[in-house]
Amino acid sequence: MLGLQCESNAEWIARVKDNSALLLTDHAHCEKKASVMAISLMSRYPERAELVDAMAELSIEEMSHFQMVVRKLKERNLPLERDPGDNYVQALFEHLRKNEPLRLLDKLIVSSLIEARSCERFQLLSEHTPEDDLKEFYRSLLASEARHRNLFLKLAKLYFPEEEVEKRLEEMQAIEAKIVRSLDSKAVMHG
Amino acid sequence: MLGLQCESNAEWIARVKDNSALLLTDHAHCEKKASVMAISLMSRYPERAELVDAMAELSIEEMSHFQMVVRKLKERNLPLERDPGDNYVQALFEHLRKNEPLRLLDKLIVSSLIEARSCERFQLLSEHTPEDDLKEFYRSLLASEARHRNLFLKLAKLYFPEEEVEKRLEEMQAIEAKIVRSLDSKAVMHG
Repeated sequence: MLGLQCESNAEWIARVKDNSALLLTDHAHCEKKASVMAISLMSRYPERAELVDAMAELSIEEMSHFQMVVRKLKERNLPLERDPGDNYVQALFEHLRKNEPLRLLDKLIVSSLIEARSCERFQLLSEHTPEDDLKEFYRSLLASEARHRNLFLKLAKLYFPEEEVEKRLEEMQAIEAKIVRSLDSKAVMHG
Repeated sequence: MLGLQCESNAEWIARVKDNSALLLTDHAHCEKKASVMAISLMSRYPERAELVDAMAELSIEEMSHFQMVVRKLKERNLPLERDPGDNYVQALFEHLRKNEPLRLLDKLIVSSLIEARSCERFQLLSEHTPEDDLKEFYRSLLASEARHRNLFLKLAKLYFPEEEVEKRLEEMQAIEAKIVRSLDSKAVMHG
């Protein structure tokens, strides 16, 4: 349904489900970076009014998710540690084409894939996390991620012919699956 | 009251008050960059919990101001143009000390000064802009800027001895005044 070409492997959820401390810090930084990515998109393409409106709204929503994750850390007396970085997103960004407007298309498609993967992983977390409040929290987030995934594809189809979007999406889905299969074994959102 | 060592000169308000097109685009980008600056502060100092909470909240507020300015552009059928850049903020940033924690202190003080200057300029705009809705809009914003100015000073005094804050604030106030006196004659927020 989300158009992902591989499922997260079973070791990932086994690794993270009992490690809220590491996962929540990384998750907070993911939300923050999603907000920054939204602002960066609208800064780069101010002439695309629909994109600007959607990204302004999205940046606010992602920051409010950041606040929620920070609250979960506080409730557990856990500090927000430094951003551990995100090899998955970096690897995806290396596949952005350099020339406009293709770069914009690729950014929208990559963003939709990141949201789709988050949605899949929040689903797993909501099923396997032993902590009840986190189950509920992840369930609420997965709906947002699915919505954001559709938003990015809708924007792609607003600015580019549907066929071109579908073709590039298929290419990038294969790349995303390959990246997911080769991730480090860390207790992070994209481990 | 705002601790600014010079007033904006009379030419500035004469230049911008009838040039909503340029001013609104620049203003939108100022709000956006204030949001980015807030996110950047909390990314750099995740261990400062009060700073993280305050900056997450501030980044959301600044983006909601961005949305309001974009709405004002739309009501006038004006496009959001590219960011014209901000020589004033860049000049201030050149005075940040390199070593931590002094760099944090300087960032908080510089941020408080930018907010104070915005407050002063929104006051002028609310008095001199011929458009009634903009008068009202600028009046609503100047209260936020005054509040943000106080927030940055409060954070500075939370993390540094009051005397040290006051001493550096005085130095930076003199630098800020010098920068304001030497700005280009452009129809922008910090012209």
